Amino acid sequence: MIETLPSWCDAWVKNAIAEFVARVSREDSPEFVPPAERVAVFDNDGTLWSEQPFYFQGLFVFERVRALAEKHPEWKNTQPFQATLERDWNALAGFGEKGLLELVMATHAGMTASEFVSLVKDWLASARHPQLDRQYTELVYQPMLELLEYLRVNGFKTFIISGGGIEFIRTFSERVYGIPPEQVVGSSIVTKFEMREGKPVLVRQAQLNFLDDREGKPVAINQHIGRRPIAAFGNSDGDIPMLQWTLAGDGPRFGMLLHHDDAEREFAYDRHSASGRLDRGLQEAESGGWTVASMKHDWQRVFGFE
Amino acid sequence: MIETLPSWCDAWVKNAIAEFVARVSREDSPEFVPPAERVAVFDNDGTLWSEQPFYFQGLFVFERVRALAEKHPEWKNTQPFQATLERDWNALAGFGEKGLLELVMATHAGMTASEFVSLVKDWLASARHPQLDRQYTELVYQPMLELLEYLRVNGFKTFIISGGGIEFIRTFSERVYGIPPEQVVGSSIVTKFEMREGKPVLVRQAQLNFLDDREGKPVAINQHIGRRPIAAFGNSDGDIPMLQWTLAGDGPRFGMLLHHDDAEREFAYDRHSASGRLDRGLQEAESGGWTVASMKHDWQRVFGFE
Repeated sequence: MIETLPSWCDAWVKNAIAEFVARVSREDSPEFVPPAERVAVFDNDGTLWSEQPFYFQGLFVFERVRALAEKHPEWKNTQPFQATLERDWNALAGFGEKGLLELVMATHAGMTASEFVSLVKDWLASARHPQLDRQYTELVYQPMLELLEYLRVNGFKTFIISGGGIEFIRTFSERVYGIPPEQVVGSSIVTKFEMREGKPVLVRQAQLNFLDDREGKPVAINQHIGRRPIAAFGNSDGDIPMLQWTLAGDGPRFGMLLHHDDAEREFAYDRHSASGRLDRGLQEAESGGWTVASMKHDWQRVFGFE
Repeated sequence: MIETLPSWCDAWVKNAIAEFVARVSREDSPEFVPPAERVAVFDNDGTLWSEQPFYFQGLFVFERVRALAEKHPEWKNTQPFQATLERDWNALAGFGEKGLLELVMATHAGMTASEFVSLVKDWLASARHPQLDRQYTELVYQPMLELLEYLRVNGFKTFIISGGGIEFIRTFSERVYGIPPEQVVGSSIVTKFEMREGKPVLVRQAQLNFLDDREGKPVAINQHIGRRPIAAFGNSDGDIPMLQWTLAGDGPRFGMLLHHDDAEREFAYDRHSASGRLDRGLQEAESGGWTVASMKHDWQRVFGFE
């Protein structure tokens, strides 16, 4: 017999997951859920892969700013471009989400959808994490890969619901997570259909279409899935509405927050993090009946290469 | 052996479909397409079910206007409400898409997503088609149901890409078409996440989120599926960009327009229709290598109850 979730410690959280899956998938269970309704949703940054020192897509954005700087001499003294070029992370953090979105618009638009995909794929194939010296797609959590597969083997459909860019994540989600593009939901910019020399193209516009974070996550779930999930997995305060929405349905439900408390094997952060802040979530978890998984105590290993 | 597509006449179109499916799904075919990439997209109104005398969702909208009229005495002399209440279809047609959207905003918003679903379900369970005296969900095309199933048996994933409302279609798509909600894409209004008495709800706003018609269809395909379909089925000029987008990919492709030319068994219309106008599409079909299916000559029967 194949061991279930081998990278998880044989402790309370692993048992809670296995018990929930049995409750909804065993045909003789009084709480049996038909396979079509076994929808599980996962945040991406900090839940399926690392997000330190910053969201990986953010690092891609910074790299694009540097690559395009020659064509934009004005960026040298225009914020938030200047801070990005000078690697002044404190100043950049000060510009917050609005600043990051401005950088996204300047670097992710003005090209076709397929040109963008090529840029992301090239970057993912060559870029390396500054501290861990690994490709970013190696920095996915082995226990979560096992969890995705375990759920699918038990008839679940697994979806990503991420604040990150939908087209960015889709470039690797099938290969790395086994999640096909139609099950990836994320933030997006407006795209426009055009005929160019008799060929149809989708052109990315410098305009936000949807921000799939916080209160946006249940909205995106409803828009893309059209069915309330029965299980949700996140790691930050931005995932609270997604967990509330999931847990508010009838019948058995499972909600989990991943707590980054392992400075040795990964990173330890929660309340004081620029990305992936987890503060209110830890309180809500108690009252809401959500499970908190500790990377330090619940995971035998973090990455597949260990 | 089960007969393939029994409601289709044994003629050129049926053979073209079967040949295409064999080309992409037989493992020994030089043009084999992996199952994950076998995506087929279908328009809904006029392609999977009838759309005369008007889009069925439009008929639902008109019924909602009448139901809400008591609370809105001003509608008696405000257009396009007045025309709707007076059943002045010519005047109403004059207000075009803009008028219809106004009626949608006034009748489909200001309630939660689940309240809206209940309204639609109740209407579909009781309303009957004015000429054919059938429930609307009986007015689905038997040959298209067989085509959906035939494609799925051959490893395809089937999606709806409709100008109609995404939440409207999802109320019956799984039961009637075998298409789960996450594979239904349509037009939508903005929804907002709110906590009401400690319970999370999604509230429908009187604001258009996305119009999934014409140039919007390839955009929606990219947003929801993230992969270019290899087969597309439509029936009106609003489906042209979807067919162009599908056919422009590499490898084997199939595009079909359904021609409503059967006044005896259904309705005959194309160039001069308020809904489902097909004019440029018939020209494009010739130059673009799209297949035109005639309801009169290619279908042995139209509805399942015949």
